[in-house]
Amino acid sequence: MGSNSASETAGKPIRCQAAVCRKAGEPLIIEEIEVAPPTSWEVRIKILCTSLCHSDVTFWKLSAGPVSAFPRILGHEAAGVVESVGENVEEVKEGDIVIPVFQRNCGECRDCKCPKGNICSKFPEDFYCGMPRDGSSRFKDKNGEKLYHTLCVSSFTEYTVVDVTHVVKMNPDFPIDKASLLSCGVSTGLGAAWRVADIEEGSTVAIFGLGAVGLAVVQGAKLRGAAKIIGVDLNPEKIEIGKKFGLTDFINPTTCGEKSTSQIIKEMTDGGADYCFECIGLASLMQEAFTSSRKGTGKTVILGIEMHGTPLSINPYELAAGKTITGSMFGGVKAKVDIPIFANQYLNNELNLEGFITHEVNCEDINKAFDLLEAGKTLRCIIWMDK
Amino acid sequence: MGSNSASETAGKPIRCQAAVCRKAGEPLIIEEIEVAPPTSWEVRIKILCTSLCHSDVTFWKLSAGPVSAFPRILGHEAAGVVESVGENVEEVKEGDIVIPVFQRNCGECRDCKCPKGNICSKFPEDFYCGMPRDGSSRFKDKNGEKLYHTLCVSSFTEYTVVDVTHVVKMNPDFPIDKASLLSCGVSTGLGAAWRVADIEEGSTVAIFGLGAVGLAVVQGAKLRGAAKIIGVDLNPEKIEIGKKFGLTDFINPTTCGEKSTSQIIKEMTDGGADYCFECIGLASLMQEAFTSSRKGTGKTVILGIEMHGTPLSINPYELAAGKTITGSMFGGVKAKVDIPIFANQYLNNELNLEGFITHEVNCEDINKAFDLLEAGKTLRCIIWMDK
Repeated sequence: MGSNSASETAGKPIRCQAAVCRKAGEPLIIEEIEVAPPTSWEVRIKILCTSLCHSDVTFWKLSAGPVSAFPRILGHEAAGVVESVGENVEEVKEGDIVIPVFQRNCGECRDCKCPKGNICSKFPEDFYCGMPRDGSSRFKDKNGEKLYHTLCVSSFTEYTVVDVTHVVKMNPDFPIDKASLLSCGVSTGLGAAWRVADIEEGSTVAIFGLGAVGLAVVQGAKLRGAAKIIGVDLNPEKIEIGKKFGLTDFINPTTCGEKSTSQIIKEMTDGGADYCFECIGLASLMQEAFTSSRKGTGKTVILGIEMHGTPLSINPYELAAGKTITGSMFGGVKAKVDIPIFANQYLNNELNLEGFITHEVNCEDINKAFDLLEAGKTLRCIIWMDK
Repeated sequence: MGSNSASETAGKPIRCQAAVCRKAGEPLIIEEIEVAPPTSWEVRIKILCTSLCHSDVTFWKLSAGPVSAFPRILGHEAAGVVESVGENVEEVKEGDIVIPVFQRNCGECRDCKCPKGNICSKFPEDFYCGMPRDGSSRFKDKNGEKLYHTLCVSSFTEYTVVDVTHVVKMNPDFPIDKASLLSCGVSTGLGAAWRVADIEEGSTVAIFGLGAVGLAVVQGAKLRGAAKIIGVDLNPEKIEIGKKFGLTDFINPTTCGEKSTSQIIKEMTDGGADYCFECIGLASLMQEAFTSSRKGTGKTVILGIEMHGTPLSINPYELAAGKTITGSMFGGVKAKVDIPIFANQYLNNELNLEGFITHEVNCEDINKAFDLLEAGKTLRCIIWMDK
């Protein structure tokens, strides 16, 4: 969109199409909605494309709890162009190509300034279903009813409003569909291998779950020079897909006979993997990953969000033997610092992003993307919002 | 002892006094025992003094399991002089002042060569009650009955035999009672603050349990420049003792009213301590320490050996928020590399070792040391074996 149309819409509500989730687990409905102009510190973005991350499916199904509110606009992995900005926004301007990110990065708080971690502590409260500063909404349906936000992004709409702390500016030449991938899943896996695990050259790595995040960990491990990269998945098709990202070995737990996955990993790695990653979200698998890690130095990184809230049961003697377990949101990535690094790696041909895009649909077919992901048939489905 | 007496005894069994544990939880009995000469890779040490570590009390009480065997010789924190060495031992010689350590450090295996961790993997099996290479014993009682070893050290005897991988040579001028402290508890705490947690300048630290290990963590945190060092203990006398090692704040959980310890720590540290240490050995306390740690970057280090084998219940969402939990044996200390560093720190007046020595007894009063430790009345009681 040109600057003319932006100046026409700036400061005014925009009426546009969005895929609204009216009830947990029911198909999204394409509706006309109204998107308020950005207030102070906010950016209104014209979403060009969005991609479906598994957490959206989780939020879509969730009918209760602090992260659940209906009707809502889901979607948090996307790329777009700045339509207009509110007061105090200097970091981006109309026409900039940006990606919204659910994990904010103010750059000013104690945690953003700390070289470790990525949990920004600028805002005291977590508003899961509204704008991050006060929990309010920028969306209304055609009857004037409030629509809730999701993860401070809400990208399943032609226009959204995002706090500037949740926006990363991209190189204008960066391919827009690949930019969307960097806005959540792929960055999470790459970051976990680099920022959280800090994988060393020559080490052994085991990854439980080869979805997009798991495969991004595979790629991250390869970039760090890991010697052995073992994937664990129930779907045998993931062997060939995994190899494209750097997988060296594969375990299908259903075809292992009486041996447990951790036993096999210990045998393959002479005592346990140096780094284990859980990318599914099951406490039992997190425990198996921890058991698979090497005594003395093994590190287990939890990336999956536990689906049922089940606590982990950890053997204290395994901890005493020097093992570590940790986790992260967004792979420890500080969005505004680290995503430009990943983008450069892609532009330098060090990163395979194409391999993650298995399907593309237009906005009106957004529910197909849910079906494909639920059936385990897609890594990332790009949903074009401007077509 | 001079070289004359050594050459007289070298190669022959030595008859000497030892404090033998014949039954779990019963007072040790001073008996005459026979100590075999060192075989290949072994060192026979005349123990000059030993000190009582809490793990000895645990082993003493334990009546079943792989680390339990009677009659046995307890004790694993000590200092002495080399009486004679077996074949292939070149690292130490007769007359050298040494400390035995339960955590071996061969210096050659993959794990000893790795800059991280300290779990030596040279020997494939763990023999908890005998020599580390084959599980055999070097001790007999006066009736010729085998006496079991403890943790590859067994220091409650005038003479013991230790594998060379479990021996650290000390500067001959180093005070012998302070040397004993470095052989386990104090090194564990110092190492945990440095090697495991890698505490950074200006950080906040919470230590659960102010026994010798916990106080050594306090001192280690101070050496690393921590800004706030909070001790948690039920004994209010630990406030003044802790201050001598660098404690800045104290919490007595019994006088906190309705607030939990973790709530208080979060308030004192603006969100949670950067580093938490559990130095008791209770799963519930390990969980409280983890809860007390800072979202995003907090690291919890488990040093206590869980007394009842209770598993830890860890909230996966706290892990997902970027928290880390880890543990170590011997504070991540690689004995032959790191203990000389601590020894130098003491000789340079950077380390307070005197403060740990609260009592001294001769060998015949060794059971008093157990009574004092059980009553929480001592940090370290030095037991002089050559008096």
